Amino acid sequence: MQVRVSRLYFEDFNPGRVFEHGPRRVTREEIVGFATEFDPQPMHLDEVAARASLLGGLSASGWHACSILMRMCTDSFVLNSASMGTPGVDEVKWLIPIRPGDELTLRATVMESRTSKSRPEMGFVRFMFELLNQSGKCAVTLTTSLMIGRRSGEAGRP
Amino acid sequence: MQVRVSRLYFEDFNPGRVFEHGPRRVTREEIVGFATEFDPQPMHLDEVAARASLLGGLSASGWHACSILMRMCTDSFVLNSASMGTPGVDEVKWLIPIRPGDELTLRATVMESRTSKSRPEMGFVRFMFELLNQSGKCAVTLTTSLMIGRRSGEAGRP
Repeated sequence: MQVRVSRLYFEDFNPGRVFEHGPRRVTREEIVGFATEFDPQPMHLDEVAARASLLGGLSASGWHACSILMRMCTDSFVLNSASMGTPGVDEVKWLIPIRPGDELTLRATVMESRTSKSRPEMGFVRFMFELLNQSGKCAVTLTTSLMIGRRSGEAGRP
Repeated sequence: MQVRVSRLYFEDFNPGRVFEHGPRRVTREEIVGFATEFDPQPMHLDEVAARASLLGGLSASGWHACSILMRMCTDSFVLNSASMGTPGVDEVKWLIPIRPGDELTLRATVMESRTSKSRPEMGFVRFMFELLNQSGKCAVTLTTSLMIGRRSGEAGRP
C-alpha cells in the first residue's frame, strides 16, 4: 500500500502560502526551437532581426514562457497535489523579455481559496505565479484559479 | 525593390473584421510530446489515466492549445502585418478538451482598436481569438490586445 503523506489538498493552500521552484536555465536552442514550431516571429528566431524589434534582442515567445512556467508548476507542486486542472487563465503579463541564458525561478503565491458550492469535493485556489530571472526581476506574471480536491473529498471516495 | 501591397497595418483592423485560418489537425504524438516537455500531467500523457480525470480522455495541455493558436495567428495574419507584439493576455478560457485527431480552425475577431497616445506610430487592436473544432464547437477563447504599427508611422520612417 502506497501512502502519500506529502500529497497536497485544497486545505493545504492557505492564502499567503508561497511555493518556489528552480532555477531553470533557458537556452538559445530552446527559444528558437519553440518559436520555430509555435511562434515564428523574427524577434524569437533571429538575433539581428530581434535587435530591430521592440524587445531589443532575441527573446522567448510569451507562450514559451507560459509553458516553462507550467512545467515548473508541475514539478513544484501540481503533480504532488490533488489538482484537477483549471478552466482558464485570468491574466498573463509579459513584463520583460526572457533572454538566452536566463535562469528562471518560479514563485507561486496563494491569493485566495474557496470551496465549491456545486462540487463539495473540491475548491478553487487562486494563484499568482511569477517567473523571476537571475537578477530577481519579474519577467512574467500569471493569475489563475486551480480546482483542487479537498482532503475530506478524497477520504470519502471508495 | 520589394513592394508588400498586402501588408496589414493598424488601419486595416477595423472592429468586426474576422480572420479565419485552418484547419490544422492535432495528433496524439503532438499532444503527448508537448505535455512530456511542458505539462506532464496524466490527463495529457496517458489514455487510461486520462479517462479517470475530469476531462474524460486524453487531451491537449491548455498551453499546447494556446501555442497552436499562436502559430495559427502567425500564419494567418501576424507575419503579414506590422504587429509589434503584445504585453500580455487578458483572458484564456479552456472550454472543451482538444482530442487527438481534432481539426482546429482559428477565428480571430477584431473587437476594438485605438491609437496610442504616447506612441503615435502604433495602435492597440483588441482581438478575440477562438479555436473551433471540426464540429464547430469552441475549445478555446483568448482575448488580448496587439500593438500594431500605423500605416502613417511606417511611411514616416527613414
